Amino acid sequence: MSNPRPIGVFDSGIGGLTVVKALRERLPNETIVYLGDTARVPYGPKSPETVQRYALELAHMLMQKNSKALVVACNTVSSVALPLLTRKFSVPVIGVIQAGARAALQATRNQHVGVIGTRATIRSGAYEKALRATDNNVRVSSRACPLLVPLIEEGLLDDDVTDRVIVRYLEPLLADGIDTLVLGCTHYPLLSVAIARVLGREITLVDSAENCATAVQETLDRHSLRSPAIERGELHVALTDAADNFLNVARDALQLNFGEIELRALP
Amino acid sequence: MSNPRPIGVFDSGIGGLTVVKALRERLPNETIVYLGDTARVPYGPKSPETVQRYALELAHMLMQKNSKALVVACNTVSSVALPLLTRKFSVPVIGVIQAGARAALQATRNQHVGVIGTRATIRSGAYEKALRATDNNVRVSSRACPLLVPLIEEGLLDDDVTDRVIVRYLEPLLADGIDTLVLGCTHYPLLSVAIARVLGREITLVDSAENCATAVQETLDRHSLRSPAIERGELHVALTDAADNFLNVARDALQLNFGEIELRALP
Repeated sequence: MSNPRPIGVFDSGIGGLTVVKALRERLPNETIVYLGDTARVPYGPKSPETVQRYALELAHMLMQKNSKALVVACNTVSSVALPLLTRKFSVPVIGVIQAGARAALQATRNQHVGVIGTRATIRSGAYEKALRATDNNVRVSSRACPLLVPLIEEGLLDDDVTDRVIVRYLEPLLADGIDTLVLGCTHYPLLSVAIARVLGREITLVDSAENCATAVQETLDRHSLRSPAIERGELHVALTDAADNFLNVARDALQLNFGEIELRALP
Repeated sequence: MSNPRPIGVFDSGIGGLTVVKALRERLPNETIVYLGDTARVPYGPKSPETVQRYALELAHMLMQKNSKALVVACNTVSSVALPLLTRKFSVPVIGVIQAGARAALQATRNQHVGVIGTRATIRSGAYEKALRATDNNVRVSSRACPLLVPLIEEGLLDDDVTDRVIVRYLEPLLADGIDTLVLGCTHYPLLSVAIARVLGREITLVDSAENCATAVQETLDRHSLRSPAIERGELHVALTDAADNFLNVARDALQLNFGEIELRALP
């Protein structure tokens, strides 16, 4: 089977590669085209209207590659643009929020879930809505952590400054009594070791990248869209701006193999 | 004199308001229109080509307001786009690099100057070039400090986490033997108290905002463009994206008065 239709994955920048990593492990025969909007990253501090406009542009660019499904590997975009994207495109659109919320509800024993993310994700209340839609009794404590992405992009994955910032952000959630914490930003799995160290063992971490990959698999199965290929699928990475120090950080931390980065001009 | 031609000031975001603050103090009768590209901030990690394209778009938008001079209140843009902007527009274009370099050379006694800024500013070598163009014997130690802008935008202006990050960035420059430090990013004056505390008294801080305001005054005088108004000039602030927590941080820290924020769509 030559030239299979790819899964299109997009993110505001490089963080969504954590989702690609999970997809590569779970669906090794699928070809993936990834588009990171490094020319306009980060989306976290931006308004919903601006994020929606950018998301439509990126999704259109991936549809030009004949994508059979769109994966929104970004919590900020998932939190404000998923209904819009689902309406505009005929292929399945999978975000990270529903999958993360479902996994959190499976993990919690005291029905008290913490959520951390960018300012835009937390302000949207998308995780609260998704959690309460399934379990109306769940308690949710959420917190925006705007410094975590810059710290990760600086490569400070194992560093006392990062630990201090994590403590400061998470202490109020621990004091609230959460027993489960959703890492509501696709960058955050790169800090899961540091976060687990600060939290201690009693708190279950819910990784939105892992759970998103599970949801993609289920969606492809439901729509009979799984690749019939027996060889390993390809991974193509395109960015809207060439310069990004964090690409090296992510490539090393995730041990992802991809060749030449394609530079895609924005419309 | 009604409807005087304004000075157009632009930045990748909100940081350039430190330049506006300095301009308001030095040139109180001038009307200023400020445009911050909060929809695409930060420019620091982006490539020179992308920053140049964005800078032209912002400058065009300010020229539509009949600006008599353009002030590039952003070190990243000044470092990669000033020749281009000077070529494209007939009004004087004033950046922050030349003024900062000149002030640093006046301040240093041991001819060893430190420069801190974003990744793009430091990578461009623009300060080194400007310093060496005047004094070929000056030594320059420079360092990119990508975490300072996020820390400032979080409002952590007086905080032990910020102090630790500053120490980590500046210790190598101190060990090199600098006696003068250029704050090569318009955000950084908001950290000048913290930086001075870490550096001690022997190091002179060169504030690019202050020196840019001096350069604007000189340029307006040279071109006979000073406002004849006797009343205080107006300040109009426009942003390309509405949501920015940092606007409140800057407004408080700088004690700047401006009315309604105008939202300007990008072309």
